[in-house]
Amino acid sequence: MWRPYFQPYHLIIVQDGDPSKTIHVPEGFDYELYNRNDINRILGPKASCISFKDSACRCFGYMVSKKKYIFTIDDDCFVAKDPSGKEINALEQHIKNILSPSTPFFFNTLYDPYREGADFVRGYPFSLREGAPTAISHGLWLNIPDYDAPTQLVKPRERNTRYVDAVMTIPKGTLFPMCGMNLTFNRELIGPAMYFGLMGDGQPIGRYDDMWAGWCTKVICDHLGYGVKTGLPYIWHSKASNPFVNLKKEYKGIYWQEELIPFFQGVTLPKDCTTVQKCYLELSKQVKAKLGKVDEYFNKLADAMVTWTEAWDELNPPVGKSAEVVTNAANGPALKK
Amino acid sequence: MWRPYFQPYHLIIVQDGDPSKTIHVPEGFDYELYNRNDINRILGPKASCISFKDSACRCFGYMVSKKKYIFTIDDDCFVAKDPSGKEINALEQHIKNILSPSTPFFFNTLYDPYREGADFVRGYPFSLREGAPTAISHGLWLNIPDYDAPTQLVKPRERNTRYVDAVMTIPKGTLFPMCGMNLTFNRELIGPAMYFGLMGDGQPIGRYDDMWAGWCTKVICDHLGYGVKTGLPYIWHSKASNPFVNLKKEYKGIYWQEELIPFFQGVTLPKDCTTVQKCYLELSKQVKAKLGKVDEYFNKLADAMVTWTEAWDELNPPVGKSAEVVTNAANGPALKK
Repeated sequence: MWRPYFQPYHLIIVQDGDPSKTIHVPEGFDYELYNRNDINRILGPKASCISFKDSACRCFGYMVSKKKYIFTIDDDCFVAKDPSGKEINALEQHIKNILSPSTPFFFNTLYDPYREGADFVRGYPFSLREGAPTAISHGLWLNIPDYDAPTQLVKPRERNTRYVDAVMTIPKGTLFPMCGMNLTFNRELIGPAMYFGLMGDGQPIGRYDDMWAGWCTKVICDHLGYGVKTGLPYIWHSKASNPFVNLKKEYKGIYWQEELIPFFQGVTLPKDCTTVQKCYLELSKQVKAKLGKVDEYFNKLADAMVTWTEAWDELNPPVGKSAEVVTNAANGPALKK
Repeated sequence: MWRPYFQPYHLIIVQDGDPSKTIHVPEGFDYELYNRNDINRILGPKASCISFKDSACRCFGYMVSKKKYIFTIDDDCFVAKDPSGKEINALEQHIKNILSPSTPFFFNTLYDPYREGADFVRGYPFSLREGAPTAISHGLWLNIPDYDAPTQLVKPRERNTRYVDAVMTIPKGTLFPMCGMNLTFNRELIGPAMYFGLMGDGQPIGRYDDMWAGWCTKVICDHLGYGVKTGLPYIWHSKASNPFVNLKKEYKGIYWQEELIPFFQGVTLPKDCTTVQKCYLELSKQVKAKLGKVDEYFNKLADAMVTWTEAWDELNPPVGKSAEVVTNAANGPALKK
């Protein structure tokens, strides 16, 4: 079903669970496949920051990718159709979203002003109409909505049938629940903060991987002046996960989030945090200082955030820095990048 | 066209321009009609705060109304149809919006969680799911979009054909361009701040009446913990106003708004501003202190904001206060209201 949409792109598949099992990838795809043995081999002791038996494991793929734009998708998602019955090319819409600016500083009532047939409405300051670079495009889901276990239990039959034909920017200063089911981001702008945390095997929590990444990336995007969009495209979410299993994974998250949200709402990053890495390391310090008392888990998570950043930098040596060294050695004028 | 939708409600018509002209109101409506002579008679010298020859004049109607919910609409708006071809009952949707809570403190990616078929998504803090009282419901427009004069001039043929089936809360701390074309508000919660300013006849500016009210009401709603929704319902906006005339009315606003937006983004109201009136009077002081230097007009506007509040309180003596006096006189226990 995805072949016509995914075949033009490079795929990274992160195999969760038993690495001795063989995953069959259909022919004709340009892909890399990593299992747990690969992760351990590539990262060595730093592999401890990559979760196991949880969808959080796929952030390893974000780290090893060499591409600028990443699309990440759950394994129970299919191609959705728009109200006219036409199949939705999710990647095409994500690319549109991420290549056009965001409007985080002022709300536009006709939604994304850069879409065809739309613009900024009366009263929108002209100085803000250039917008901000878009770092994240958060897509939605028809059929099974992304509910937590208690809502799944209460509303087992609810299906999302409403196709909302809109893309919008989540305003600066506003947090949102980022779902990793159908998500695109600009790896150069925000990649080092797209860490899915410690979840699943051996951890006291699961199913908060994307939420954690969403809160971290949003406060960093706000600080660095990048935009986050949500809305189109839709994918078709086929099956609801088991609400009883989910409840077990989520229950600590459900009460911890009552402390996490005020924490993230109150985060301020100092001015000298001018790169994602600097922001992320500063955030890890604040996590340790302020959330460590909520549960010992957050001390471990803060350490893992540091390990993740170190691993990222090892696999992705900064290009700008080496250019700078060359310029200095030649004693010429400073290069801009 | 509006008869089946408006007939069940009480209408207030504010006649702009020459008061000697007679407006014909079709039979069967329960209405009050006010022209300039009525406004002058009722408000006396305080009538100076009500604009003339500008749609801003209709805020007089908000002041004299005795109803809890106000729907206000432009004279060039018709009943729109949804994508299935069914006529949209705009009032019904506004009432749904305003009777259900808002979610200003955290963004819900499936939009209004109180709509049928929707809910809060995974990761939405449970403590915030009660929401906040909704003070304003901002409806949209199909056909002619609400563009400023420069955009009208550049895109004379653009029509809004995109029906976005969503209602959402504009997050706390985010400003938006509030259009008065198709607007509902809870008069008890926010009425005294729904002042459309000094516009039109004798003023250096027009077409910023609703914008001004939108910025003032949004910062006050944010302060008092009320929500503002935007999205459905749509009305059909039939004719674009003349862009050359609009440019003349708007041009000062277009550069003033570059100073107004940072001003409103920076407004903080002290804790003892516990009523809309107190907030509004405090805001008028800040307007005078910080915008007076932008143009002398803002000193006049700040004074008019005070006059408006005085006129409002004269026509709407606070119910709570008189109850309080009675209680005190009887030396009984304090009444809650």
